[in-house]
Amino acid sequence: MWVCGALCRTRAPAQLGQRLLPESRRRRPASASFSASAEPSRVRALVYEHHGDPAKVVELKNLELAAVGGSDVHVKMLAAPINPSDINMIQGNYGLLPQLPAVGGNEGVGQVVAVGSGVTGVKPGDWVIPANPGLGTWRTEAVFGEEELITVPSDIPLQSAATLGVNPCTAYRMLVDFERLRPGDSIIQNASNSGVGQAVIQIAAARGLRTINVLRDRPDLQKLTDRLKNLGANHVVTEEELRKPEMKSFFKDVPQPRLALNCVGGKSSTELLRHLAPGGTMVTYGGMAKQPVIASVSQLIFKDLKLRGFWLSQWKKDHSPVFPSITSESALPRRWPKYWSFSFSISPSNEYSGLISCRTDWFDLLAVQGTLKSLLQHSSSISDWETKIPHGLKARSKKIFFNSHNCLNYC
Amino acid sequence: MWVCGALCRTRAPAQLGQRLLPESRRRRPASASFSASAEPSRVRALVYEHHGDPAKVVELKNLELAAVGGSDVHVKMLAAPINPSDINMIQGNYGLLPQLPAVGGNEGVGQVVAVGSGVTGVKPGDWVIPANPGLGTWRTEAVFGEEELITVPSDIPLQSAATLGVNPCTAYRMLVDFERLRPGDSIIQNASNSGVGQAVIQIAAARGLRTINVLRDRPDLQKLTDRLKNLGANHVVTEEELRKPEMKSFFKDVPQPRLALNCVGGKSSTELLRHLAPGGTMVTYGGMAKQPVIASVSQLIFKDLKLRGFWLSQWKKDHSPVFPSITSESALPRRWPKYWSFSFSISPSNEYSGLISCRTDWFDLLAVQGTLKSLLQHSSSISDWETKIPHGLKARSKKIFFNSHNCLNYC
Repeated sequence: MWVCGALCRTRAPAQLGQRLLPESRRRRPASASFSASAEPSRVRALVYEHHGDPAKVVELKNLELAAVGGSDVHVKMLAAPINPSDINMIQGNYGLLPQLPAVGGNEGVGQVVAVGSGVTGVKPGDWVIPANPGLGTWRTEAVFGEEELITVPSDIPLQSAATLGVNPCTAYRMLVDFERLRPGDSIIQNASNSGVGQAVIQIAAARGLRTINVLRDRPDLQKLTDRLKNLGANHVVTEEELRKPEMKSFFKDVPQPRLALNCVGGKSSTELLRHLAPGGTMVTYGGMAKQPVIASVSQLIFKDLKLRGFWLSQWKKDHSPVFPSITSESALPRRWPKYWSFSFSISPSNEYSGLISCRTDWFDLLAVQGTLKSLLQHSSSISDWETKIPHGLKARSKKIFFNSHNCLNYC
Repeated sequence: MWVCGALCRTRAPAQLGQRLLPESRRRRPASASFSASAEPSRVRALVYEHHGDPAKVVELKNLELAAVGGSDVHVKMLAAPINPSDINMIQGNYGLLPQLPAVGGNEGVGQVVAVGSGVTGVKPGDWVIPANPGLGTWRTEAVFGEEELITVPSDIPLQSAATLGVNPCTAYRMLVDFERLRPGDSIIQNASNSGVGQAVIQIAAARGLRTINVLRDRPDLQKLTDRLKNLGANHVVTEEELRKPEMKSFFKDVPQPRLALNCVGGKSSTELLRHLAPGGTMVTYGGMAKQPVIASVSQLIFKDLKLRGFWLSQWKKDHSPVFPSITSESALPRRWPKYWSFSFSISPSNEYSGLISCRTDWFDLLAVQGTLKSLLQHSSSISDWETKIPHGLKARSKKIFFNSHNCLNYC
């Protein structure tokens, strides 16, 4: 559940502000004007005062909710996941760090309870997600500025909405920004059961791309394979299988991938590079193995492989201001421009290659797929933090999930 | 000195043909027509029958020169360097390998002695360089097909002409194809005293770019530093200095480079990556350290560094056919189209970003600089192969050079 525009606007025991890098991303100061649309109430939040091991530095605290100003929105948190980037941010190992003390969590979905008198883009009952990282979504309620929120459809599954803002957008941009892929082309990825990996499978399937999905071997491999294939995965192989000479015959039937998506690094990324088609691109978006990416000189020179990285926060920063025409489209609901500028362009751009329309693609995708499915299925109470979260934080393959039932998930 | 369209057209003791990958690059079969413009004569050539240690597998042999066919050109070799790529090709560690037995050497300049009756693009006295790699330039004479040659000005220094076809073109393309650099921007490179490194310094200086040139420490460091600064180098630092914290203050005065050119790999390339500006590109074109390129996950994700490779042979293959308008420019001497299509486009291309005119740039550069200077200054006889070349091949920092005085160089 999430509350307060930011904790810097909460009457908190400690002054909780945010230091977001770069400078332009810093939170605006607390509004001086207030409306009476929401009564102050107590908020429960997962707060850390120092960077370090999340199991040690994160504490469940009671905070007070600020009054709602004219341009503010009172939001009740419905669901918020714990992503590896949340953990890295608490540890201090992330490219964007909040000012301490801070509330954990970068992603989630909430429902609007009340709005200030100057708010026109959202209304009570709407579902909203954060426009930018670093808001601190691990709270029961919040008062946000309107501009910090993006409205999302409220008729999609709760967990899909709660994870719509980062993982599917990351997956989508990586699939369209680096290589021109056509139906029938293949891509390869590791950590295929991660949030991004699952979104990659579904978006790729909707675009007619074949996915080669790499997993670490595990006891329940067949069960997980079946689940990924149910999402649209074409091929599922283990890291061990990928290293075997038999993969040569595999690629007689499957086109060599021109795009590899790497969330692991180390040996796993070396294998992805080995199977990339000449001229192909490997995009790194995570480093779960905590090991660097290693490319042979001959792969770079003679095979012309390209190594890139992707970070949605930077992408948003780079692309948010480039759509001035949005505001002139008066026929569009006011809430959508934010949504587009948040993660997608309006139309194919001659100026920025790789930017293509997602108004069509995205909603076509939802129409085709119903909605992005999620393998996150269990939940537990936010108050279980002290007993359950530390375990979840250590088990890197587990996904933890707060939701409206005050539940905490592992899957 | 170089001779014979290819050894496959030489009445050689062994049938010396060429296997060039990909398939489309294979040498055409020997011509059936001959002219009497050149008398057959004996040719000395450095031949290898197996891949392996060049000091062991390369032998100086006598070959016979083929008669000159209607579309053939008889060339006397004037100068031919030994590049690392020549060594790698002999070792079998190159992306393009000749059919064995083969003559060594990919680069050099020769003078036209005689031409076949159907030859219109070159005339006796012209200076010519190979259009493609793999011709085998380490010979005293050759009969080439006209299409295998590119005419170059004969009023530039011999050693510049002999090294014009690979290193300066590689330097030029790397400077223009990967990052949009403007006067005042800086670039960083290692192996700065290599053939490419020297060309980078001079072309960058002519374009107003600041170069940060990295060298291994050595006894004659100051002398070499002075020589590189004489070519136009702005800054010369050692690998050891680059690792020191003091480099932070260096970058207070010098803009962080947006382009790094890596000919070494291993730790040296790690240092280049560390000093690249966010969003910058490192282009690898050699691997002298015989170690891979290692990039941290955070450099890829949060710093958005791009890792690319460059190989001129592939660039030529990819870009040669894209200039159909050249042939319609009747006012241009017929010999230039080949030169352009070899390494440069005619004009700024909307279709292929990064391709810019080099007709202007290149000759402006020659006008500004006089010509590209070379640090190669000594020479020795091709017949000294057995005593001098093996030493030169082991001393990787040495540049060996055949020239018209039958000399062999180390510098």
